[in-house]
Amino acid sequence: MEPSRVLYGLDLLGVAVFAVSGVMTAVRKEMDIFGALVVATVTAIGGGTLRDLLLDQPVFWIEHQVYLWVVFIVTAVTLLILHRKGPALRGLLLADAFGLAVFTISGAQKAAGMGLSFIMVVIMAAMTGTAGGIMRDILCAEIPLVLQKEIYATAAIAGAAVYVLLQWLLASPVLSAGSGLAFVFGLRLLAIQRNINLPRLRFSRTPEQPGERK
Amino acid sequence: MEPSRVLYGLDLLGVAVFAVSGVMTAVRKEMDIFGALVVATVTAIGGGTLRDLLLDQPVFWIEHQVYLWVVFIVTAVTLLILHRKGPALRGLLLADAFGLAVFTISGAQKAAGMGLSFIMVVIMAAMTGTAGGIMRDILCAEIPLVLQKEIYATAAIAGAAVYVLLQWLLASPVLSAGSGLAFVFGLRLLAIQRNINLPRLRFSRTPEQPGERK
Amino acid sequence: MEPSRVLYGLDLLGVAVFAVSGVMTAVRKEMDIFGALVVATVTAIGGGTLRDLLLDQPVFWIEHQVYLWVVFIVTAVTLLILHRKGPALRGLLLADAFGLAVFTISGAQKAAGMGLSFIMVVIMAAMTGTAGGIMRDILCAEIPLVLQKEIYATAAIAGAAVYVLLQWLLASPVLSAGSGLAFVFGLRLLAIQRNINLPRLRFSRTPEQPGERK
Repeated sequence: MEPSRVLYGLDLLGVAVFAVSGVMTAVRKEMDIFGALVVATVTAIGGGTLRDLLLDQPVFWIEHQVYLWVVFIVTAVTLLILHRKGPALRGLLLADAFGLAVFTISGAQKAAGMGLSFIMVVIMAAMTGTAGGIMRDILCAEIPLVLQKEIYATAAIAGAAVYVLLQWLLASPVLSAGSGLAFVFGLRLLAIQRNINLPRLRFSRTPEQPGERK
Repeated sequence: MEPSRVLYGLDLLGVAVFAVSGVMTAVRKEMDIFGALVVATVTAIGGGTLRDLLLDQPVFWIEHQVYLWVVFIVTAVTLLILHRKGPALRGLLLADAFGLAVFTISGAQKAAGMGLSFIMVVIMAAMTGTAGGIMRDILCAEIPLVLQKEIYATAAIAGAAVYVLLQWLLASPVLSAGSGLAFVFGLRLLAIQRNINLPRLRFSRTPEQPGERK
Repeated sequence: MEPSRVLYGLDLLGVAVFAVSGVMTAVRKEMDIFGALVVATVTAIGGGTLRDLLLDQPVFWIEHQVYLWVVFIVTAVTLLILHRKGPALRGLLLADAFGLAVFTISGAQKAAGMGLSFIMVVIMAAMTGTAGGIMRDILCAEIPLVLQKEIYATAAIAGAAVYVLLQWLLASPVLSAGSGLAFVFGLRLLAIQRNINLPRLRFSRTPEQPGERK
C-alpha cells in the first residue's frame, strides 16, 4: 500500500470518529440538530484544515468531498443511535481517543512527506490531532479538555515520535503508521482508565482577588 | 451587471450589516470603544476571510481596503445612534439576519465561480454566512447563537441551494443572487417572528454530574 | 542592520515574551504542564501565524524552527521560576505589554515590506500584536482582555502609526522600529500604572433579561 492511500484512509477514519465526538458533545450541550452538524463538522475537519492551511497545501475536504459525506452520514447515524440508547460518556472518550490517534499520525505523515524536520513533524502531528477537539470545546464555550488534565497532548507527541522513529528505521508506511496510531490510542486509553493525570500547575499562592483578572 | 460586481456589492453590504451586529453585541457586553471596533471588524470580515483562506484566494479586504473603511464608518455611526437611542434587540436580530443572507450568497457565488460542486458551494456558503457571527460570539465568550437554537444554519443552507438551483436554471447572477438572498433573509425573519426552533437534542437522561465534564 | 534581520530579531523577542505570558495565564487557570506548553505556543506564534496566513506568506515558525525552540525553553524556564517564586501579576502585565509592542512592530514591518498602504500596515500591525493574546484568552474561555478595558489596541494602533511615519521620514528601519516599539510599550505601561481606561460603552438601559441572550 503506498503512503498516500494510507493517509487517505486515516483521514477518513479520523473524520468519522471525530464527527461522533462532536455530535456527542453537542447533544450534551442540548444544541439543535444543525448545531450538532456544525460542531461535528468543525471537530472532524478542523485539525486537518489547520494542518493544510499552515503547510500551504490544498485543503483536504475541498479536494475530496467524500469527507463531507462521511461527516453527514456519521452525524445522522450517531443521532439515531443516541436517540435510542442515550448519550454515553465512555463512547465519547473512546471516539475522541481514536480520533486523536488517527489525526496525529495523519498529520505526521503529511509533514514527513513534505520533508520537514523531526521536531516539525511532531508539532504538526500534535496540532492536527488536537486542534479539532480544541475547536469543538471553544464552540461549546468550555476550556478545552486537552489543556486541563489527563495525558492528551502528551500521547500525541509520544506517538508521533514513535511514528517518525519507526519510519526512519523500517521505511514501511503501514507498519510505522499502525504502530504510532496504536501507541497514541493505547496511551490515551491507559490514562482514561487509570485516571492518570499530569500534576496540575498550582503554585504557593495564587493572588486571585474577586473582580481582578489576569 | 456582471457577476463580479454583484459579488463586490454583496460583500460590501454584508460587511456593513455584520459590523452593526458586532457593535451591538460589544455594547451589550459593555466593552470599550476599541473593543467594539475589534468585534465589529471580526464579525464583518471573519466569514469572508475564512472563505478566502480555505479557497486559497487573496483575502478580500487586503485586496480592496474599502471594506475596512466601511467597517470604521459603520462602527462610528452605529455607536452614535446607539448613544442616542439605546441598544435595540430587534435591530441586532435584523442586522444579523441580513448579514447572514448576504454573506451566504456571496460565499456561494465565489465557490460557484471556481467551478466547485453543488454540495461544496452550499457548504462554503453556509460557512461564509455563519463564521463571522460565530467568531463574534466566541470573542464574547458565549456559545455561538447559531449552534443553540432557531433556524439559522438551516436558512443559510436552504438559501444557498435556492441560489445554485436558480443559477443553473436561469444563468442570471442578479436574479439568482437576489432570490437566494431573499430566501435566507425571509426564512430567518420568519423563524425570529414566530419563534420557530428546531427541537433541541435532549435524550432520555443526561449523565451530567456536578463537577463532571464531557 | 538590514530590515529582515530587525524583523527576525523582533519576532524572536515577541515569541519569547508572549510565551511567558501564556505560561503565566495557564498557571493561573491551574492547567497541567502540557496545557501550559500549548497555551504558551498559541500565544507566542498565534499573531504571527495569522499575519502570514492573511498575507499569503510562508508561516514564520515553519520556515525557521528556532522559534519553537525558543517557546519550549522559555516555557520550561518560566515554569521553574514560577515554581520557586509564585506567579506575579505585574510580571504577566509587563511581558504582555512587551509582546504587544514587539509583534505590533513586526507586523507593521512585514506589511510595509510588501508595499501595502498606510491603513493596511496599521491594521496588520494591530492584528499581529493582539491576536496571540486574544487566542490565549479564548483558550482559557475568557472574554479577551484586549476587548474589555484599558488602552490596548489603542497603543498598538498609535505605535504602528508612529512606525510608518518615522520610516517614511527617516527611512531607517532600526530607528523607526525602535521608536514605534518604545511608543507602544510606554503607552501600555502608562495605561496600566495610571489605570487609564477608555470609557466602557454603557447606554441608557440595557434590555438584558435573565434567560434572554442577544
